[in-house]
Amino acid sequence: MDRPRVPVAVLGASGYTGGELIRLLLEHPRAEIAYLGVRDGAERSLEAEHPFLAGRTDLALRDLDPAAAAAAASFVFIAMPHGLSAEQMPTLLGAGARVIDLGGDFRLAAEDYPEWYGFDHPCPELLDEAVYGLTELFTDRIVDARLVANPGCYPTPAILGVAPLLASGLVENGPVLVDGKSGLSGAGKSLTDAMMFSTSHESVRPYKVPRHQHTPEIERVLGLVAGGFAPPAIFVPHLVPQVRGVLCTSYVPLASDAVTTAELTACLEEAYEGRPFVQVLAPGGMVDTKRVRGANTIELQAVADRRTGQAVAIGAIDNLVKGAAGQAIQNFNVMNGFDEAEGLASVGVYP
Amino acid sequence: MDRPRVPVAVLGASGYTGGELIRLLLEHPRAEIAYLGVRDGAERSLEAEHPFLAGRTDLALRDLDPAAAAAAASFVFIAMPHGLSAEQMPTLLGAGARVIDLGGDFRLAAEDYPEWYGFDHPCPELLDEAVYGLTELFTDRIVDARLVANPGCYPTPAILGVAPLLASGLVENGPVLVDGKSGLSGAGKSLTDAMMFSTSHESVRPYKVPRHQHTPEIERVLGLVAGGFAPPAIFVPHLVPQVRGVLCTSYVPLASDAVTTAELTACLEEAYEGRPFVQVLAPGGMVDTKRVRGANTIELQAVADRRTGQAVAIGAIDNLVKGAAGQAIQNFNVMNGFDEAEGLASVGVYP
Amino acid sequence: MDRPRVPVAVLGASGYTGGELIRLLLEHPRAEIAYLGVRDGAERSLEAEHPFLAGRTDLALRDLDPAAAAAAASFVFIAMPHGLSAEQMPTLLGAGARVIDLGGDFRLAAEDYPEWYGFDHPCPELLDEAVYGLTELFTDRIVDARLVANPGCYPTPAILGVAPLLASGLVENGPVLVDGKSGLSGAGKSLTDAMMFSTSHESVRPYKVPRHQHTPEIERVLGLVAGGFAPPAIFVPHLVPQVRGVLCTSYVPLASDAVTTAELTACLEEAYEGRPFVQVLAPGGMVDTKRVRGANTIELQAVADRRTGQAVAIGAIDNLVKGAAGQAIQNFNVMNGFDEAEGLASVGVYP
Amino acid sequence: MDRPRVPVAVLGASGYTGGELIRLLLEHPRAEIAYLGVRDGAERSLEAEHPFLAGRTDLALRDLDPAAAAAAASFVFIAMPHGLSAEQMPTLLGAGARVIDLGGDFRLAAEDYPEWYGFDHPCPELLDEAVYGLTELFTDRIVDARLVANPGCYPTPAILGVAPLLASGLVENGPVLVDGKSGLSGAGKSLTDAMMFSTSHESVRPYKVPRHQHTPEIERVLGLVAGGFAPPAIFVPHLVPQVRGVLCTSYVPLASDAVTTAELTACLEEAYEGRPFVQVLAPGGMVDTKRVRGANTIELQAVADRRTGQAVAIGAIDNLVKGAAGQAIQNFNVMNGFDEAEGLASVGVYP
Repeated sequence: MDRPRVPVAVLGASGYTGGELIRLLLEHPRAEIAYLGVRDGAERSLEAEHPFLAGRTDLALRDLDPAAAAAAASFVFIAMPHGLSAEQMPTLLGAGARVIDLGGDFRLAAEDYPEWYGFDHPCPELLDEAVYGLTELFTDRIVDARLVANPGCYPTPAILGVAPLLASGLVENGPVLVDGKSGLSGAGKSLTDAMMFSTSHESVRPYKVPRHQHTPEIERVLGLVAGGFAPPAIFVPHLVPQVRGVLCTSYVPLASDAVTTAELTACLEEAYEGRPFVQVLAPGGMVDTKRVRGANTIELQAVADRRTGQAVAIGAIDNLVKGAAGQAIQNFNVMNGFDEAEGLASVGVYP
Repeated sequence: MDRPRVPVAVLGASGYTGGELIRLLLEHPRAEIAYLGVRDGAERSLEAEHPFLAGRTDLALRDLDPAAAAAAASFVFIAMPHGLSAEQMPTLLGAGARVIDLGGDFRLAAEDYPEWYGFDHPCPELLDEAVYGLTELFTDRIVDARLVANPGCYPTPAILGVAPLLASGLVENGPVLVDGKSGLSGAGKSLTDAMMFSTSHESVRPYKVPRHQHTPEIERVLGLVAGGFAPPAIFVPHLVPQVRGVLCTSYVPLASDAVTTAELTACLEEAYEGRPFVQVLAPGGMVDTKRVRGANTIELQAVADRRTGQAVAIGAIDNLVKGAAGQAIQNFNVMNGFDEAEGLASVGVYP
Repeated sequence: MDRPRVPVAVLGASGYTGGELIRLLLEHPRAEIAYLGVRDGAERSLEAEHPFLAGRTDLALRDLDPAAAAAAASFVFIAMPHGLSAEQMPTLLGAGARVIDLGGDFRLAAEDYPEWYGFDHPCPELLDEAVYGLTELFTDRIVDARLVANPGCYPTPAILGVAPLLASGLVENGPVLVDGKSGLSGAGKSLTDAMMFSTSHESVRPYKVPRHQHTPEIERVLGLVAGGFAPPAIFVPHLVPQVRGVLCTSYVPLASDAVTTAELTACLEEAYEGRPFVQVLAPGGMVDTKRVRGANTIELQAVADRRTGQAVAIGAIDNLVKGAAGQAIQNFNVMNGFDEAEGLASVGVYP
Repeated sequence: MDRPRVPVAVLGASGYTGGELIRLLLEHPRAEIAYLGVRDGAERSLEAEHPFLAGRTDLALRDLDPAAAAAAASFVFIAMPHGLSAEQMPTLLGAGARVIDLGGDFRLAAEDYPEWYGFDHPCPELLDEAVYGLTELFTDRIVDARLVANPGCYPTPAILGVAPLLASGLVENGPVLVDGKSGLSGAGKSLTDAMMFSTSHESVRPYKVPRHQHTPEIERVLGLVAGGFAPPAIFVPHLVPQVRGVLCTSYVPLASDAVTTAELTACLEEAYEGRPFVQVLAPGGMVDTKRVRGANTIELQAVADRRTGQAVAIGAIDNLVKGAAGQAIQNFNVMNGFDEAEGLASVGVYP
């Protein structure tokens, strides 16, 4: 006997993240897609936008209407550029929906938005209510949340790698240097010269140095973990020539010369014991974005370098899965009392 | 009227660096390849080893004999795994040859070899004589050198980016964190699972953390620049899915909060003014390995981050050209009194 | 209540196909992996061979013993280089196992083996019994088969594209020209220079022209479809720089000038109506290996060219899924009376 | 003493082909770039359009004016979308310039333009005068030409492979099937979803089947070679995930069963004996686009298949060099009486 399914809506169904949400929700035994909205107003078949989903559902993409979405579904996933979900949140929540926002509109404090996102937040009162959806760290708060701010793709491996070290006191609350590498799908479907195949192949390129909007997100959440004081962070992202995959290499000062790689490794293992999507690699293993492609898994590793007194924490994910749609569904599972791994692959498509 | 050519030998002609040396030397108007040696003892045609060079020269690959090489050529390029060139150096120098060693055997102090390369140096007396061949920094010493230690691929962009900042006092002689990204050709022609296409595609992987042998090379040379005291360094290299290209992102503490990105940029511009292979990018531009592919050019950029008090210096090269064969020929030009750009492309094959 | 699972063995568990079989079987609700054998004799953990499967099963890789495999499992998948499965087949069948052989040992007539595979077939009497496992064409015979010869990766899209046109009389039983393009995983895990990343990137290369062993397989099966007379075929495979994906472009003479693209399209649609893994694209759509990556789906398209009197049939699959492990499980489903799509994804991981 | 340089203009300087022309002309000892025109009217620095050429020349991109171009330069290269060069040709020729058109406007007969290019040719009288610039086949006519129609990227390897076989009578003047594979740069700089990295990676896609405009070009030129009667041709191009490189696999009926691979190979070798850019591979060698990247070289191979009575001719080039800018400069050399290899690399950047 099939168990009942939760009717869900996807707002912003036309991008890569929207397509990945639909792919995963179609395979999810407890979700039923009830509404697909796009913000460009052009109604069309799902196949027209995502040919790889041809024939999988009859649902069409509709001109986005938050009230209609909340009427059709009790659960709403939002995958839209920043600024747009904040506008529609009061309507969605007011209609009784629970919402997971995959964009950046509810991850920071109100005063950060003008500087890092370039707009004044329209509903700052909701920022306090929003729960940061890094599932492994905030499960308890996610369970009952009405509004979850799903993490950014880079912050997910950066924070999951550094947070336990910081919480345990093995590293200082000092400057955190996060060097990120991302495949091209992380930048979305924008038709720009920088995203073209001929421009991107055989190319490693840093960008937005040092002003990427994931910087305050990393600082703020590490601050929560550290007990309030946010460590200063610098974040330098790089595009690498692959489609999926984000790897962050984070450098934090060790609390003392005596801290060993074995201690750092044990700290990560304890922090994530029993969590189905975290793989902690022993020293010597090579963390690899390829191994997690298509899966909700994160690979983590930590190393102590006495020469410079630095801990190096490395994390790798599939940016569209654990870095976006997969983690959103993991949160959906937690919010509905399902097994957190329900409907989510933990094994990647390899090679 | 053609100008006279210098007869040169290439020892270790079968690898990627050997092939690139031959490609560049064939086009060089002042060099004449006189000897090609391989260490595996199997004599064969150049075409058998490097099909892309089919028909360009009749010279065969010969079982490597340093005395024969020095007899045939007054100038010797060595592109062999570490440990091998040190063994042959006394013979080569004793026969009167001038030598550029593209491996790591003459880049460090004698005491570093057991720890970082795993062998006791067989001719430590030559280490003092060897000149580190980072052309832009040590031109004056290279001119008359008998033995040049050509830099490693990662140290080239790391040091060229950080050294002027350190020498000018804009950054502290503090811990230097170098995060490197390299294409697969940097690892040479080894037939291992890690080098296969199916293993490497869609894969970012850190390796040898934090024990890569380029770490002491970066420390030592930055120490020379800083006036003797070597700053501690950590170096974390990553493989990215492309063939050519190395990009290093280096983090060093700013000397004061007042230092600006404009000052860092000006410092790099002054340091390399008039040098044909250095391109300093203004803030906002994206350094790109793709743009320098096939060329001896390095792209550099520096940014000040007041939030964390860090300078970020970014450098990108083609690892087989500026990171190996091209810089070796640049040194060859300097050692012979030729224009340093003789026979070397400064424009990459793009896209 | 869970339905009972069939105990299965995988012989040749260390290659890419072996890994893909294990990945898919782990997710299959009606299969239970009971035995994993490797032919190199080195017992080791599954994780040691396939790190991406770390933690998914406690089963180790064992030195391959067909009797032990047949004792542990009622169903055996073989993913070994040609020549090896034929040797073990009598033991496996004699012990009562049903077998799906993913290699080429049971796809041809006995007289073809010396020429195309270089060995005399050790058990020619089993060749008549073996059923060719192109699921969509031979479902009826697969149901009760004891021994299924799973198709080659190239023949799958070539035959599925051409067979209906041939059976319907829209094309002649004339020379069939199959131009194949394959990602590198199709060549398996062999450590050769041709398989290295630096060798394969930016490279299109034809190989084994015109002597690839899939040639007689295509001829023979098209002959079955055409009523006995095998049309002469030429097959020219090419390596293209991607990991997964095979696309075949096949050219066959049209039966008359009057045949239209619409008729060819309708022919394919009718032939595969209701089959869950076949997508027939209308003219103008672009068949794409990317869209089927990780899925058991095949995309097909056919076009009539009056200028030359040729039909062009195009097919694209994931070589490790529909071209190997996925189709094997599809056959396993058919042989056990399960839904043919049980446990198999029809949507790829895109982009 | 430097030899005098020919002042040249490039019209359509902003595309990939324009950039490659400028790259090669900057290195050419007998050419001097005197004019760079773009058709979008926006004057800008060369660096703004082609950052990889930063600092190599002070010449800016100007709003294209054919009269000004012809005044500044005696030689004009045109790299513009079809339809545009035909409009400007009378002005350019009237002003005394010699012109090499890299587009398709002068490759066909007047009656072909409405069907294949969608426009009526504005100056059909010039079509008879235009010489098809496949250098190795038409050198004698190119020498004195006023207007050269530079070949398309796909026709170059297709025709160079098939033409000698046809001219020698080893193959029939029957249907020619050309299966093409091209990297993404062949499609130019168009910002479409199909050209994005995330769309193109891990993707093989046929397109424009069977209506690509290179079809009549192949037919017409093979007709010239065959003595007038154009053999019917079908051409099916495919995009493969690399930047540079075109490989064509052409199938033509053998004239008799007695024709051998050795005869076909000898035919190609004789046809191109002494030509600096043609490499004929013996049977067993693998033609490879990678080996010719950045070079003006073409690799050719031919094989006889008695099973189907087909000759297979394979050719590989760098589409931006031998398939566009390089061959244009080769023709420029011929037209000016220079060595045909002047300023052109015959060795690719490998790996």
